[in-house]
Amino acid sequence: MAEKITTRSADYSQWYIDLVRSAKLADYSDVRGCMVIRPNGYAIWEKMQTALDRMFKETGHVNAYFPLFIPESFIAKEAEHIEGFAPECAVVTHGGGEELAEKLYVRPTSETIIWSSYKKWIQSYRDLPILINQWANVVRWEMRTRLFLRTTEFLWQEGHTAHATPEESQEEVVRMINVYKTFAENYMALPVIIGKKTDSEKFAGAVDTWCIEAMMQDSKALQAGTSHNLGQNFAKAFDCQFQTRDGKLDYVWATSWGVSTRLIGALIMAHSDDRGLVLPPKLATRQVVIIPILKGDKAAVCEKAHAISRTLSANGIPAFVDDSEQNSPGWKFAEYELQGIPLRIELGPRDIQNGTCIVARRDTLEKTELALDDTLSVSISEILNAIQQNLFDRALEFRNEHTFEASSYSEFREMVENGFVIAHWDGTAETEAKIKEETKATIRVLPEEPDYISRYAMHEAGTCIYSGNPAAQKAVFAKAY
Amino acid sequence: MAEKITTRSADYSQWYIDLVRSAKLADYSDVRGCMVIRPNGYAIWEKMQTALDRMFKETGHVNAYFPLFIPESFIAKEAEHIEGFAPECAVVTHGGGEELAEKLYVRPTSETIIWSSYKKWIQSYRDLPILINQWANVVRWEMRTRLFLRTTEFLWQEGHTAHATPEESQEEVVRMINVYKTFAENYMALPVIIGKKTDSEKFAGAVDTWCIEAMMQDSKALQAGTSHNLGQNFAKAFDCQFQTRDGKLDYVWATSWGVSTRLIGALIMAHSDDRGLVLPPKLATRQVVIIPILKGDKAAVCEKAHAISRTLSANGIPAFVDDSEQNSPGWKFAEYELQGIPLRIELGPRDIQNGTCIVARRDTLEKTELALDDTLSVSISEILNAIQQNLFDRALEFRNEHTFEASSYSEFREMVENGFVIAHWDGTAETEAKIKEETKATIRVLPEEPDYISRYAMHEAGTCIYSGNPAAQKAVFAKAY
Repeated sequence: MAEKITTRSADYSQWYIDLVRSAKLADYSDVRGCMVIRPNGYAIWEKMQTALDRMFKETGHVNAYFPLFIPESFIAKEAEHIEGFAPECAVVTHGGGEELAEKLYVRPTSETIIWSSYKKWIQSYRDLPILINQWANVVRWEMRTRLFLRTTEFLWQEGHTAHATPEESQEEVVRMINVYKTFAENYMALPVIIGKKTDSEKFAGAVDTWCIEAMMQDSKALQAGTSHNLGQNFAKAFDCQFQTRDGKLDYVWATSWGVSTRLIGALIMAHSDDRGLVLPPKLATRQVVIIPILKGDKAAVCEKAHAISRTLSANGIPAFVDDSEQNSPGWKFAEYELQGIPLRIELGPRDIQNGTCIVARRDTLEKTELALDDTLSVSISEILNAIQQNLFDRALEFRNEHTFEASSYSEFREMVENGFVIAHWDGTAETEAKIKEETKATIRVLPEEPDYISRYAMHEAGTCIYSGNPAAQKAVFAKAY
Repeated sequence: MAEKITTRSADYSQWYIDLVRSAKLADYSDVRGCMVIRPNGYAIWEKMQTALDRMFKETGHVNAYFPLFIPESFIAKEAEHIEGFAPECAVVTHGGGEELAEKLYVRPTSETIIWSSYKKWIQSYRDLPILINQWANVVRWEMRTRLFLRTTEFLWQEGHTAHATPEESQEEVVRMINVYKTFAENYMALPVIIGKKTDSEKFAGAVDTWCIEAMMQDSKALQAGTSHNLGQNFAKAFDCQFQTRDGKLDYVWATSWGVSTRLIGALIMAHSDDRGLVLPPKLATRQVVIIPILKGDKAAVCEKAHAISRTLSANGIPAFVDDSEQNSPGWKFAEYELQGIPLRIELGPRDIQNGTCIVARRDTLEKTELALDDTLSVSISEILNAIQQNLFDRALEFRNEHTFEASSYSEFREMVENGFVIAHWDGTAETEAKIKEETKATIRVLPEEPDYISRYAMHEAGTCIYSGNPAAQKAVFAKAY
């Protein structure tokens, strides 16, 4: 029998850990803070990679690979960057049996090592833009870790682009945060808000950080992707100048953008339930499990199950049969619910006689009877689409229900325990810090989506919820992962 | 104009470096011994990954990801393993601003960190086999580096499997070395010999190492992939026992197998020429470049070029047009020859009038006239297949011409300057070491392919070429990368 997982209402954090381990998505390793991504979890990452990589290429990007190690002097070249990253780095001091003359940092992010190459590659505007992405592992020393969400080593992609004008780099920043939104909403079924980070939450070394922000089932926020406008900061740090179209010299304009295996954590926290993983069909390597009820003419039932599986797979719906006699149907139902297979087909001798089968949806647990005829693949495909849509709708409804507008700080403090709170902010880092200190809530995002802005009148002037000073805009506050 | 590259006859090593850098495949980084894999080079790796990953999955394997860092005590658990790898490791001594209690090795290979997880996952024969592959970066401190062939950090895949019986693990070892051979020959157009390594050349910690061995254009050998039978060595080191089908306790049987970005170096050295890269069509992201000759009605020529490109791409032949006016056709011819685009189509106003185009093969540099009609895609596709086959045939012929049988040591010493030498070996590590010392040649492989064995009578008893002692078999000697 599958291990029992804690319910969400009993202990949300424990539910998450139980689920990740029971569904064999990931496990802690014997290396402090590092995880093992097990095959079930890695399969989700592969689906994410495939979809994202295609979207990156469709927007003109190519992949490359830069070194894991960064000389200490490189990290130090950009002042904010070293301040932000140096304390959380793993440092290599010995190699090949000898102490190194210069320490090497295991990359926490690759701006510096990449710009030391870009400096060599860029002489003229003809060499621009450079639109490169890298799939890689990165290391940031973490004190408190949580599988997928916060680990010392994680996998990600990092885009690093170089442009001739600030307009082009700003366009790229917005283009890529929109690619992330499309991916989050269309593949992960996860509604997100596009917007900017405040100065205190932005990337160390960026002029501006754009993000997509999502809500989890415990109504906490999770930053799901970022796209940074780096201005000329890294070009200046690496003295990377180019000859402009009109023959002048200028520093190159830069962006960087990334998403990581953290998205797997977001996916779990957004959709899964007390029975286990709930996967959007588009990110499921196996979309349908067929479980023959082994009574009567077992061979005939199994044969029919495999025939259905072949038909579905041939129609682009990856299906498989579990006809092992070792486990009962009930055990199998529970096991594949735990694993998040989007659809289950139950098939017994009587069903075959009636020319029907029972189909159970993972998202709603609803069962339907379907005809075992030529229409089956189409019907299954429609249900899978309905699951994909339902997960998104459900998550959006949940977010709307847990988004509040506060008109006083006492109201704010209550509301922020239960979701996103929209409130006027005076624009100072001091207010932001005070609110964080007192409530643990931070400004998650200053929305940049017209619909969201108008819905919550984000740009309406008012009075700061905390300081009482004039506020030019509202911000979205929440506790966050 | 593209940079001039040194010719192979003038200086083979310099030719290789010039080619890699001019074709923008890779570059040295500012980190000692580490390379930057540039987009043109990484595109080849992506094609390799796609083909290999599919073959791994078809043989029942799944992907996962294990930590980059390995505690020092883990590496030390397998005696031969630590002796082989510890001296070439990069060592992390500090993390999060503090000195670590235990040093962490950056993985040079992952047997130890993976078996520390397998120990937790395996209790019974029901948990076996485990068939896991990992795509990852690894680090081995190298004193003398060469782009792709030998760098401190490189990318690879490493399969790690666990089995209930020695028969199953041996089957896996042979299955995977055959997958590598199929990939090398069918995709890379690189003929290889399957066989075993001698004890002194085998993997540190393995019972047996199987390999595929290839010949480069300078007639040196290059090990292109390995598959290790690890016996119970790592299971014993990590105390990983399981309950067998008949209720006893036994240690788990293991294999590991890998290929790396080194294959890109092999690909270049096997096929390329003095004009630049020669790519087998199956590993080319872009198979056809169309170069319009911009005379007369330029717009009409460009339009036709793009129409051809769309038709080819729609027929599964990735094509693109270079219609920039900045560079001459001659410059473009040289540039795309350097980049290794397998086929070039030249298209001028007169060609269009005649309903023909000129097609130039990258491998032979031959030009043919083709009709600009419905048959074009099929004709192009046939030429691409012919290129793929020709590269393999040419490489095989070259290997055959540079494989010699020595009957005396003086003959051996001459022959080994020009290729593979097949000679009787007395089976001792001492003889092997002496020959290496005196000639720099090593035993590359003890062939396990029936055809090769019978062709060169590998198992015929005789007298050792070096010691004069009785020899039960012959071995393949060569200088190697």
